[in-house]
Amino acid sequence: MRTVNVALAERSYPIRIGGALLGQGELIASSLRTPRAAIVTNATVAPLYLSRLRDALAGAGVDLTEVVLPDGEAHKDWATLNLIFDGLLSARCERKTTLVALGGGVIGDMTGFAAATYQRGVPFIQIPTTLLSQVDSSVGGKTAINHPLGKNMIGAFYQPRLVVADIDTLQTLPDAELKAGLAEVIKYGLIRDLPFLEWLEAHMDALLARDTDALAYAVERSCVNKAEVVAADETEQGERATLNLGHTFGHAIEAGMGFGNWLHGEAVAAGTIMAAELSARLGYLDAAALSRVRRIFERAGLPVSGPKLGVERYIELMRHDKKVEDGKLRLILLESVGRAIIHDSAPMADIAASIETCCS
Amino acid sequence: MRTVNVALAERSYPIRIGGALLGQGELIASSLRTPRAAIVTNATVAPLYLSRLRDALAGAGVDLTEVVLPDGEAHKDWATLNLIFDGLLSARCERKTTLVALGGGVIGDMTGFAAATYQRGVPFIQIPTTLLSQVDSSVGGKTAINHPLGKNMIGAFYQPRLVVADIDTLQTLPDAELKAGLAEVIKYGLIRDLPFLEWLEAHMDALLARDTDALAYAVERSCVNKAEVVAADETEQGERATLNLGHTFGHAIEAGMGFGNWLHGEAVAAGTIMAAELSARLGYLDAAALSRVRRIFERAGLPVSGPKLGVERYIELMRHDKKVEDGKLRLILLESVGRAIIHDSAPMADIAASIETCCS
Ligand SMILES: NC(=O)c1ccc[n+]([C@@H]2O[C@H](COP(=O)([O-])OP(=O)(O)OC[C@H]3O[C@@H](n4cnc5c(N)ncnc54)[C@H](O)[C@@H]3O)[C@@H](O)[C@H]2O)c1
Ligand SMILES: NC(=O)c1ccc[n+]([C@@H]2O[C@H](COP(=O)([O-])OP(=O)(O)OC[C@H]3O[C@@H](n4cnc5c(N)ncnc54)[C@H](O)[C@@H]3O)[C@@H](O)[C@H]2O)c1
Ligand SMILES: [Zn+2]
Ligand SMILES: [Zn+2]
Repeated sequence: MRTVNVALAERSYPIRIGGALLGQGELIASSLRTPRAAIVTNATVAPLYLSRLRDALAGAGVDLTEVVLPDGEAHKDWATLNLIFDGLLSARCERKTTLVALGGGVIGDMTGFAAATYQRGVPFIQIPTTLLSQVDSSVGGKTAINHPLGKNMIGAFYQPRLVVADIDTLQTLPDAELKAGLAEVIKYGLIRDLPFLEWLEAHMDALLARDTDALAYAVERSCVNKAEVVAADETEQGERATLNLGHTFGHAIEAGMGFGNWLHGEAVAAGTIMAAELSARLGYLDAAALSRVRRIFERAGLPVSGPKLGVERYIELMRHDKKVEDGKLRLILLESVGRAIIHDSAPMADIAASIETCCS
Repeated sequence: MRTVNVALAERSYPIRIGGALLGQGELIASSLRTPRAAIVTNATVAPLYLSRLRDALAGAGVDLTEVVLPDGEAHKDWATLNLIFDGLLSARCERKTTLVALGGGVIGDMTGFAAATYQRGVPFIQIPTTLLSQVDSSVGGKTAINHPLGKNMIGAFYQPRLVVADIDTLQTLPDAELKAGLAEVIKYGLIRDLPFLEWLEAHMDALLARDTDALAYAVERSCVNKAEVVAADETEQGERATLNLGHTFGHAIEAGMGFGNWLHGEAVAAGTIMAAELSARLGYLDAAALSRVRRIFERAGLPVSGPKLGVERYIELMRHDKKVEDGKLRLILLESVGRAIIHDSAPMADIAASIETCCS
């Protein structure tokens, strides 16, 4: 088992990474405030992993409540969140009852927000079961639900007490979801960890073949990177913004195509190519660097160009993105491969040309 | 203008108390992060005070969005909260936009929760316009909405940057609401401030006559007391619980009669009499002390006995209250007039007898 510590003073917590962790009841039970927990999961994950977790926790003497939500980003809304509250209140869960999220980022984000707000905050544990949630959404304490007028618009910063990333759960993940998760993994290499990018270039096939050791290493290294960024900037005032490499372009793709048609990781991949192209136009990356960025996404089976939405539409959608502050378009660019910068004065013409070049 | 500082390290903030504060645009504008604010109020308060606040802020160069909610505790729910989010998102309010709550505790709690969760947290200012909200709900950072299965079940601890208590707004408050607010004022005297209780005994008529100076002093002294308790115990682990004097009995009255039929302060008054009676039975208060407690509530025109719900029903409702932890009934009692204690081993027979004695 590998461990990454997220250092946030009195809100610090460990991420445990490895195989067969779901069955280790004590690992989780020892982090509870009282031997009482409510597992929140969804209709896809429950048949795969709920009984394993239930048996492990019950074996460790934990009194359990279970809430099974419908699956899908479309249900990341208040009505579904309320199903969690209904379950907790019906079972008379108290302030010390721990909420345990078992599932991907949607379950993690919703359960985290429920934990942040149920009786003004109860303890929270994450058991992420998608690659994306293991390397990204379960680290950093962002929780949220969607609003009809915007994704993740309602939420809180709320840290778990423990994250358990059981690598074995990735074996049942649909192929496209695995690849989408890799987009975020690659991102860490690009923005701040060149040696990791080199490792990814060498081990992409092992990752795609779901080799447990390779996946565990990629998850660990990703978590270390995200944890470092988050520890330095818990509430996203500065460096944390670099985690949004490719995301402003990517959100335009997701929104422009209708949410759900492109996976987030796919949009981030194409969006990162646009950001890299813009970085090249502004003189940061040379042609070799640019094609290196393209190549790693191609090897992961991810898209390297965006849909033809029209440049105007892209820019309109990007302006709508919440990272717009005081009307300025704040973008994350690559100063070099392995180093991101926050840039808020890219000429509109260059932004437009970069989008144009990267659509097909 | 009087000022009370709430000391919470980097979340410290001032409470400004006095007459004619609503018209002082600079007082509020100088606390904004950017010259952009969204005022949230309700259909009762808007015709009374919205234009005064709007003019003052507009005069100080603040760009405003306004959200007017329906009035009433029945609307302290997700659907109404969503109207705030709708308004903020339609107006494209950003992360630095400050939410300004103009109204009583319902508006304050909902706007505070909206501020805690809109884009994971935006700045927040409280302008409480009821006595209860000036002396209680606007201090301490508790925010919440109700759930069909429980009051204030969904919320967050979230501190405002500034509280402005304009005493003049109390002139339009319905009589019953003024008295209900006095119940919480008296509470501070009873639990920790005997000199204040003596002052209240001497100035109750001035308060009921809405004398501005008397009200301003009572608000200040109440805020000082609450701020001290909150600063010592921000997330309600210990002393803060003493603020719940009379509240567990009171909640049983509110719930048993159907929420809204007794005002919260009325229920707290009767509930405090029950708590005092129990304190006497357990040997803490003598007969003189007990009648002193009864007398101050009588002078404020508040009820000193509860409705005849039946003792069983009271106890069932009290067990349902969220202050029940691990099944034990944790009550706040008076060790003496001016000093509260947390007590979790009162014999059920004494609790029952105290309720019985105080119903009519
Ligand atoms: N909080 C953050 O910091 C953060 C960061 C990035 C993304 N997010 C959020 O995360 C969400 C996306 O997360 P996601 O990509 O995990 O999506 P997801 O949770 O929707 O999971 C993808 C699909 O895989 C299924 N699934 C989960 N685990 C499985 C398993 N082991 N085997 C088979 N199927 C499995 C899910 O039920 C779902 O159908 C978005 O809502 C996004 O906003 C949050
Ligand atoms: N956050 C906390 O710590 C805390 C503490 C105590 C109570 N509360 C909450 O506060 C709420 C009760 O607050 P409240 O007693 O202020 O009730 P309220 O907000 O419902 O106000 C009472 C009534 O007075 C009206 N009103 C407000 N200001 C007025 C004015 N100046 N003139 C005329 N009418 C006016 C309101 O519109 C309402 O009809 C409850 O929801 C309770 O849960 C919160
Ligand atoms: Zn992402
Ligand atoms: Zn109260």
